[in-house]
Amino acid sequence: MPNSNLNQPDQSAQASAVKPGHIALTLDEVHQLAYRVLTHHGLSAEHAQAIARVITAGERDECHSHGMYRVLSCTRTLQHGAVARDAIPVVSDRGPGVVAVDAQFGFSQLAFEVGSKVLLEKVRKTGIAALAINNCYHFSALWPEIEALVEHGVAALAMTPSHAWVAPAGGSRPVFGTNPIAFGWPRAGAQPYVFDFATSAVARGEIELYRRSGRTLPKGWGVDAKGSPSIDAATVLDQGAMLTFGGYKGSALSTMIELLAGPLIGDMTSAESLRIDDGAGASPRHGEIVIALDPRFFSAGNFIEDRQRAEKLFESITGQGARLPSQRRFAARSRSLANGYVQIPEALLRDVQQLLG
Amino acid sequence: MPNSNLNQPDQSAQASAVKPGHIALTLDEVHQLAYRVLTHHGLSAEHAQAIARVITAGERDECHSHGMYRVLSCTRTLQHGAVARDAIPVVSDRGPGVVAVDAQFGFSQLAFEVGSKVLLEKVRKTGIAALAINNCYHFSALWPEIEALVEHGVAALAMTPSHAWVAPAGGSRPVFGTNPIAFGWPRAGAQPYVFDFATSAVARGEIELYRRSGRTLPKGWGVDAKGSPSIDAATVLDQGAMLTFGGYKGSALSTMIELLAGPLIGDMTSAESLRIDDGAGASPRHGEIVIALDPRFFSAGNFIEDRQRAEKLFESITGQGARLPSQRRFAARSRSLANGYVQIPEALLRDVQQLLG
Repeated sequence: MPNSNLNQPDQSAQASAVKPGHIALTLDEVHQLAYRVLTHHGLSAEHAQAIARVITAGERDECHSHGMYRVLSCTRTLQHGAVARDAIPVVSDRGPGVVAVDAQFGFSQLAFEVGSKVLLEKVRKTGIAALAINNCYHFSALWPEIEALVEHGVAALAMTPSHAWVAPAGGSRPVFGTNPIAFGWPRAGAQPYVFDFATSAVARGEIELYRRSGRTLPKGWGVDAKGSPSIDAATVLDQGAMLTFGGYKGSALSTMIELLAGPLIGDMTSAESLRIDDGAGASPRHGEIVIALDPRFFSAGNFIEDRQRAEKLFESITGQGARLPSQRRFAARSRSLANGYVQIPEALLRDVQQLLG
Repeated sequence: MPNSNLNQPDQSAQASAVKPGHIALTLDEVHQLAYRVLTHHGLSAEHAQAIARVITAGERDECHSHGMYRVLSCTRTLQHGAVARDAIPVVSDRGPGVVAVDAQFGFSQLAFEVGSKVLLEKVRKTGIAALAINNCYHFSALWPEIEALVEHGVAALAMTPSHAWVAPAGGSRPVFGTNPIAFGWPRAGAQPYVFDFATSAVARGEIELYRRSGRTLPKGWGVDAKGSPSIDAATVLDQGAMLTFGGYKGSALSTMIELLAGPLIGDMTSAESLRIDDGAGASPRHGEIVIALDPRFFSAGNFIEDRQRAEKLFESITGQGARLPSQRRFAARSRSLANGYVQIPEALLRDVQQLLG
């Protein structure tokens, strides 16, 4: 049985299953701990609930960098002070297919929860609709949002800028953020098809790890101040720039993300977002665009056959031993739900609990 | 002065400007020649006009593989017989944000011309709208369609599957087509921001050229039948598969394109399209999805400022010596329009003119 007391973990019953240096927590315990820390630092109950939900989902899916670890950075953003701790998102109807939510400089999750309800109402009437989230602090992965929409039977696409760290193809100076793009497709009787990736070659944190350990970078991750390929982490981070994945094609996609999730929706580009942060290292503040498509409007009366077409596509991928994008994450989810607990590194848990002091 | 008589070209006045082995034709002459050949092979006047327009645009922009050269493959598709030569596209209104056009097994261009008018009407009312084109033969680039929409002040995104030649990341057998994705953003007083690229690492024709010349392929273009990297063009084309750009990220994007321009709109995946072709080598038959977004619905009352934000983004790319995706094409366009003519290889012109015999 997992621990029922956070402060005095009792691992005896499951000692064999829990990795050394880790503590088992139920998903409820993860949620409660995240919630307690965030409210302790002044975040409103509604925001803390919404954030604790995505942090718990991250731990459940063993996406550790988006799990309990994020309580630390989220608290840092709260301490930094610019984020509105009790912001109430303001919905504005912009047209039959467009809803915008002004997050009022709060975290993005609550704004998404409020806005996605209206997005779903709209897409049920129009067939395609878009949600713009403005003025939010954003730190989470996009897949929790994609999954929240896809479980209502729609396909969904989401994009955000971040902080300008990534040079365009052929350039040397940062323009783009790590600019994630995520997409989901509903499947009957199976986990949805979901991808969520940064359009940078790798995460910035990955390059930080190379710097700390003094290793040289793989080629294609970054350039120096002159735009020449660099395998030195410090050069890439401090003088040059990161690169996008996929050369000029990735660079073009990243530009599209800047435009659709920035100027289109009246919000900041990654360069503007980095300037606003002004070295504080808080969660980036910017906008987000989410597009939903209702397959029932697009299918010419053969909805079931069309769904089967998609299933054949997935089978032709998995049937040859290739993986679908979220396969590992869904396997972790099954494992966590079957076990009834997740495993948090002791040191991380200590750091998080200290934030309650 | 460019030639005014196709059959007896007079190059005297511009001999110095025309490359050896090339013939100068005005854009009107390109259009007329394409139109004559296509109607000569039984294509209806409406279809021939629509196709001649995109072929002329291809030559004008020096995208030679989408210019006069396509008259050859288009005629081959007409001779193959499956394409409906006088198909009349049928528009169906699927909802406030969705219009579908059944191309009735004709070429895609006329269906796009018909459908894009409705798409624009819809997006003006809803803020975001989608056009699905079904049952069309498709051979052209997507940028002419993107530009046709963007000149009305909307942002646009288009995707199509093709023929299954490309393996998923981690696989060995073809599942995806070269699956192009194209995007456009309107700019006041400047050519629009437009990209249009295949999600395969390279075009299949490029690998064919390597086979013909006996050169080894660069790494990352293809795999052998076991999924191991291959630099042998014949192995990749005949036994293994091509690869997407950008590894698993490109593979995920290509999957999204299959889903949105295939099963979502009730049309074929690249694998189904290749099966239908059954070795004929005609233009692929499949569907297409086009999404348009009207910035006026998304902007929170600061439309001009938001546009300027996008311009700053472009400046930060070009200002450091990096190129915007269509920059070369737009330079070619200016050149062609200033010259008043384009240059067609004599051998190609001969091949095309022979199709009139």
